[in-house]
Amino acid sequence: MPHIALPEGLPGIRAAMAFRPETAKPLNDLVEVLLRGPSTLAPGERELIATWVSSLNDCYYCHTIHGAIAAAHLGGDEDLVRRVKADFQHADISDKLKALLIIASKVQRGGKNVTSDDVAYARSFGATDVEIHDTVLIAAAFCMYNRYVDGLATVQPRDEALYRERGRQVARDGYVAVSKTYLPAEAVAR
Amino acid sequence: MPHIALPEGLPGIRAAMAFRPETAKPLNDLVEVLLRGPSTLAPGERELIATWVSSLNDCYYCHTIHGAIAAAHLGGDEDLVRRVKADFQHADISDKLKALLIIASKVQRGGKNVTSDDVAYARSFGATDVEIHDTVLIAAAFCMYNRYVDGLATVQPRDEALYRERGRQVARDGYVAVSKTYLPAEAVAR
Repeated sequence: MPHIALPEGLPGIRAAMAFRPETAKPLNDLVEVLLRGPSTLAPGERELIATWVSSLNDCYYCHTIHGAIAAAHLGGDEDLVRRVKADFQHADISDKLKALLIIASKVQRGGKNVTSDDVAYARSFGATDVEIHDTVLIAAAFCMYNRYVDGLATVQPRDEALYRERGRQVARDGYVAVSKTYLPAEAVAR
Repeated sequence: MPHIALPEGLPGIRAAMAFRPETAKPLNDLVEVLLRGPSTLAPGERELIATWVSSLNDCYYCHTIHGAIAAAHLGGDEDLVRRVKADFQHADISDKLKALLIIASKVQRGGKNVTSDDVAYARSFGATDVEIHDTVLIAAAFCMYNRYVDGLATVQPRDEALYRERGRQVARDGYVAVSKTYLPAEAVAR
């Protein structure tokens, strides 16, 4: 049961956002620009970073929904998402993405853990400054979203089909657009 | 030295925001609504929550600047801010704020640490659902901002006067307004 009186029938962060539309807007704007805005990292790669950090933080709702969104971006490859969650070093992803996931892992434990060697290693596979910046901020942002979702004890259904369907919608339409289904207009208008 | 080529002459998060104005906008919008938007928690109380979490995360830039902003909101009482950072249970703040700081401490370690007893204890001192929500989100958000600032190894000057002056400006004008001094117009327009 959630710690506060969240609206019923909405899972995870959606209940928290519906409870407080004023903060929902910048939270949605941030994830939209970070995971879907113009970038040399593909949306599927950025969703894998979000999924991995959420998995490290043991946030079921976040790692399942972002895993589903990642899979939708990756042509439905749920197996790849599972392999990244279990052991990204042996998953079929680029060396650059592996190096960025190492940085994300360090950020999850605390920003000071990122070393110049971690950054040089990512650069050796072609990672740019913006890609390194965005990796740090995605990892940091999911340390927020995960704590928000679990800190309020939101309802997190165990029905994978629900996440799969929602994942396809978000991959297709984006975070801000799908938030129209449960947020008041003033929390969605850009 | 920062891990990536951040603009010189800007401390802490301001360099990171100037490097990536696209993400600066939602980051500023979030802190503006969370710490300065309409609320039954005073801005000084919310800044103390942000300061405390930043202190737990050992982020010098964040706990110093938010401590300075808190002090500015509290009539310049820097001693109170120091006492909250050192041992909030014996600082001269309300029992409700102490109970909210306990929740914030739990969120800092991970969202699942917040118990229904923690929430009931805060309610026993009059904390509302919105206040509990905002405390969880402020604590979660500073787990992001702190990781962002330290994960990029931003420059964090040790000159307290610099933070004191900036703290007064932010307390007076707000986050979005002061960000005009170093961000391009499109990252500030609301």
